[in-house]
Amino acid sequence: MILASPHDSGVTGPSTRVADMSGAPPAAHGRYLSDAVANATLASFQSSDPSTARATSSMKFCSVCGHAVSSRIPPGDNRERFVCDNCGTIHYQNPRNVVGTVPVWEDKVLLCRRAIEPRYGYWTLPAGFMELGETTSQAAARETLEEAGARVEIQSLFSLLNVPHVHQVHLFYLARLLDIDIAAGEESLEVRLFAEHEIPWQDIAFPTVGQTLRYFLADRANGHFGLHTGDIFRSLRDG
Amino acid sequence: MILASPHDSGVTGPSTRVADMSGAPPAAHGRYLSDAVANATLASFQSSDPSTARATSSMKFCSVCGHAVSSRIPPGDNRERFVCDNCGTIHYQNPRNVVGTVPVWEDKVLLCRRAIEPRYGYWTLPAGFMELGETTSQAAARETLEEAGARVEIQSLFSLLNVPHVHQVHLFYLARLLDIDIAAGEESLEVRLFAEHEIPWQDIAFPTVGQTLRYFLADRANGHFGLHTGDIFRSLRDG
Repeated sequence: MILASPHDSGVTGPSTRVADMSGAPPAAHGRYLSDAVANATLASFQSSDPSTARATSSMKFCSVCGHAVSSRIPPGDNRERFVCDNCGTIHYQNPRNVVGTVPVWEDKVLLCRRAIEPRYGYWTLPAGFMELGETTSQAAARETLEEAGARVEIQSLFSLLNVPHVHQVHLFYLARLLDIDIAAGEESLEVRLFAEHEIPWQDIAFPTVGQTLRYFLADRANGHFGLHTGDIFRSLRDG
Repeated sequence: MILASPHDSGVTGPSTRVADMSGAPPAAHGRYLSDAVANATLASFQSSDPSTARATSSMKFCSVCGHAVSSRIPPGDNRERFVCDNCGTIHYQNPRNVVGTVPVWEDKVLLCRRAIEPRYGYWTLPAGFMELGETTSQAAARETLEEAGARVEIQSLFSLLNVPHVHQVHLFYLARLLDIDIAAGEESLEVRLFAEHEIPWQDIAFPTVGQTLRYFLADRANGHFGLHTGDIFRSLRDG
């Protein structure tokens, strides 16, 4: 199956293995949580259209000539690809970047409450899929404006967290809110500034968001902000 | 055109704007260089199959149902997407990550001489497109093994360079060669360890490789290796 990979075994790379801190309700544990959160993470940051998930996982027809494709290892390659037997196009699929910010105002951080599934009603840092033609920092600022109506000064790259079982890399930038004239965008129910003791840990939408918030609070306490890299593994066998 | 973007104008984000240091022959200048290197960068790190470039830039048929797609802004979206008028699938396209290493042995760094177009015969750090199911560090180690037969210990993330006009993010990790039992892979003509004064600056394949090597040498001279982020803009209008 094309999603299978020699690396998709839960073996960690050299970067930190991050514990599951999805903040999902205690009721949702074990394999159910694995699948639910994995799927949530997969589709989460794009639109609520389920085709988003499908687009990265399967292909039946060639997007160039419209003929059926088959999944096989092309000559000189070492991985299964969707290949068109009519026009010969090899359709590569690659992981996607989800990029966002940790928007800071005085001692508070901005969070958005999701107005779309998955994880409707849960809190997230503003983030979304990087678009064609953008840089990572441009994508981070755009998502922050779209989801929270917030204008920020992008600072340093703060976290890079791989989520390989859903083929994503999540990147969060430290950002300084230029003002607190914020407003929920179409994909948010509400946006709010949270002091540390107010953060709704049990209602955080995604593991990478919870982990990035923990890195942020720890660094702030230490008086030094660095880059944090890690991998979040939650394949089905972890369930 | 779907590749157009409000950000594809050469305006820099908050991260450093990196000068062109592609090291291309003096003969190739101006717009020719712009197009050549842009296209080179686009296809460079995947296979030599030109469909790689096409796959990110255009779509004629729905990969789910095989019907013709049209390019328009879906309801609730703000960007043109390829949309299937038959099954309703929205086909999102996103930038891709090219991930590699700066493989170090004593005072030398490993470079690979490309055996494939584009930039055949030019020198590059081992790098390639991240695959589904991988983490960034796993991809970096895999590419280093595939292209240079080199086993490395992945260290810290060293550079993250956006190349928005070709919809790529290039990430390089510092890496320690575990031995010097290296050998050219299928995509390399030769692999070699270079001391600083031996680096073939005029024959470096891609701007992000030249820039990452300059960051590495500067940091080594300063005795401190940090994360370097930047954007390389070279749209046609820069030509």
